[in-house]
Amino acid sequence: MTVYNHEYWMAKAIQLAKKGRYTTHPNPRVGCVLVKDQQIIGQGFHVKAGEGHAEVNALADAKQDAVGATAYVTLEPCSHQGKTPPCADALIKAGVARVVYGMQDPNPEVSGNGLVKIKKAGIEIIGPVLESDCEALNPGFIKRMREGLPYVRVKLAMSMDGRTAMESGESQWITDSAARLDVQRLRAQSDAIVTGIGSVLADNPSMTVRIDNNDQEADPKSVRQPIRVVMDTALSILPEAKILYPANQAWVFSVEEEVEAEHLEVLTKKGVTVRFAPRGEDGRLDLLDAMEQLADAGINEILLEAGAELAGGFLEAGLIDEIVVYMAPKLLGSSARPLFKLPLEAMDEAVELTLKSVRQVGQDVRLVYIPKYLDEDFEGDFDE
Amino acid sequence: MTVYNHEYWMAKAIQLAKKGRYTTHPNPRVGCVLVKDQQIIGQGFHVKAGEGHAEVNALADAKQDAVGATAYVTLEPCSHQGKTPPCADALIKAGVARVVYGMQDPNPEVSGNGLVKIKKAGIEIIGPVLESDCEALNPGFIKRMREGLPYVRVKLAMSMDGRTAMESGESQWITDSAARLDVQRLRAQSDAIVTGIGSVLADNPSMTVRIDNNDQEADPKSVRQPIRVVMDTALSILPEAKILYPANQAWVFSVEEEVEAEHLEVLTKKGVTVRFAPRGEDGRLDLLDAMEQLADAGINEILLEAGAELAGGFLEAGLIDEIVVYMAPKLLGSSARPLFKLPLEAMDEAVELTLKSVRQVGQDVRLVYIPKYLDEDFEGDFDE
Repeated sequence: MTVYNHEYWMAKAIQLAKKGRYTTHPNPRVGCVLVKDQQIIGQGFHVKAGEGHAEVNALADAKQDAVGATAYVTLEPCSHQGKTPPCADALIKAGVARVVYGMQDPNPEVSGNGLVKIKKAGIEIIGPVLESDCEALNPGFIKRMREGLPYVRVKLAMSMDGRTAMESGESQWITDSAARLDVQRLRAQSDAIVTGIGSVLADNPSMTVRIDNNDQEADPKSVRQPIRVVMDTALSILPEAKILYPANQAWVFSVEEEVEAEHLEVLTKKGVTVRFAPRGEDGRLDLLDAMEQLADAGINEILLEAGAELAGGFLEAGLIDEIVVYMAPKLLGSSARPLFKLPLEAMDEAVELTLKSVRQVGQDVRLVYIPKYLDEDFEGDFDE
Repeated sequence: MTVYNHEYWMAKAIQLAKKGRYTTHPNPRVGCVLVKDQQIIGQGFHVKAGEGHAEVNALADAKQDAVGATAYVTLEPCSHQGKTPPCADALIKAGVARVVYGMQDPNPEVSGNGLVKIKKAGIEIIGPVLESDCEALNPGFIKRMREGLPYVRVKLAMSMDGRTAMESGESQWITDSAARLDVQRLRAQSDAIVTGIGSVLADNPSMTVRIDNNDQEADPKSVRQPIRVVMDTALSILPEAKILYPANQAWVFSVEEEVEAEHLEVLTKKGVTVRFAPRGEDGRLDLLDAMEQLADAGINEILLEAGAELAGGFLEAGLIDEIVVYMAPKLLGSSARPLFKLPLEAMDEAVELTLKSVRQVGQDVRLVYIPKYLDEDFEGDFDE
């Protein structure tokens, strides 16, 4: 009999967890396999908030009793009564002999409680196993739990010479259809799409998720629409802007002093959520405050789709966790618009990045970078 | 006995031809294998101008007589007496039964002559086989023969936001050591390095090939230094500029009316080759004319290492055959210098490119593009 190691089974649990990529929010993506005599006897993943957690789904899936089995679960089992009963109790009751976990609960207030409860019941605990892979399942949930902020992924489409549009603003179809499909998946896995009033006024985008019926990866039936958020200091968005439909999924952030009461009333009556943020040191809307408000509302992952000005503002505020850039095979020339509005003067001010992945998507190249200011625990200000 | 097809043996000949990558100029890279009873009985490649051609080297390598063998050769055997006797005659004399060729001679004046001569001797001719791979061995030689121009590869090092230097010009070490080593290999396979007076005045580069002793790919002992060419309209280069050493490998292109006679004399006495080119329509030195002069001098492949101005000029003149760009994981910001000086206004003026390859080199990403304005027949580099 082939004996597989813990990593092998945890990798199976991770594959299961990924099936919840588009549906679990605001909950984390979690997968679980139950193994007995080197065979999977049950498997499950968390599908949707309010429904069964991964462990409970795996136990329900088991074709035989789980007494003496090993449970592999990508995230520490919960120990508290939420919308569903605690998973730690379910595993204890099922009689598993061992629990192998991928990572501890990222919420500092409950982290470790589930493991302690399981251990007290006399069950062996092993972990963390494949911790960084398990963490990669839930960058937004983890960041929200640990820092009270969402994970912000900025999506950029640029020419090979680093330009997003002509000087005039003309920009349609820089990248090709494969890249645009990929962006739809990024949207679908996000809890919120954030953009700026400049983009709304220029292009009147709807920013909804449009997943094709024959998409192999994302199921259009289960995909939920992320909320759409507009950064609009003076609340100048028109009530008929496409991005405000449906209104109950639209948020606008403004600075209270700049808002015209009548316009506010129109938007609020329409069902749009208008939130206020203070003015930051640079006189613009405080993006950190807005992000905190979104995290408080259960937003894990944000896709930022914005022009150079707002994207540059997020970067300068240290709020960007990941840059996903689609590079089209064309040159837009030296008068065209830049990627980030980011006026730096000396090489030592350059924002250092870490390359996470590179691959070809249709005729474009997709690159993912992580800004290094995050590694250094830099908060907000990287001017020095 | 396994019977291999023509493509199999031609691929072996191509591998041999690549061994001449750094040494054959101004001649083409050519490889040859002699096959008898499904076994290689002799193999060779062209190493250096003035020395034996691939076919002759393969015949000399043969451990048994070549009577009845098949000769696989990446380029049509030559039929004329050059520095060495014609290869067609050597193959006929050796008694080969069949010649399989990769591509015809690209020189329109002699193309097909070698094949005709061989056929007249009663030898079977098959080909072209793996033609585009054989063409990719010699993009420069082919372009020079067919169009009287060298193949120009522009090498660019940029930040992720498409910038090459800060506004001040500060630019050292954008890319890391792996990319810089890769550039040395690009230099080594070129017949000439071309740069502009702006770069010479700003950085005083030597632009020599520096291949490390433990480089696995390029042998530092056999690597030749390409000539170094400076585009310098007013002949303002200082005689002590590093790029002029050694002087007999340095060329400067100027516009005659702008040149100060005394300065010209100093440079010429030093051994520098000063060439004149007319003024182009835009008032600047006519790059097309300069390229024709270099092709006439036997220059096959050029590596253009220049700032935005000169690189933009080459692009606007339609002279760039290939863009090799190393993208560093950093942002230099929106005030920094652009990749190409290329002032375009509308999307339909954008220069369309074809992505040829993308791979990670150290921390950087290396991308190769072919501008679409070029006849796609002339794509060529060694990447798969």
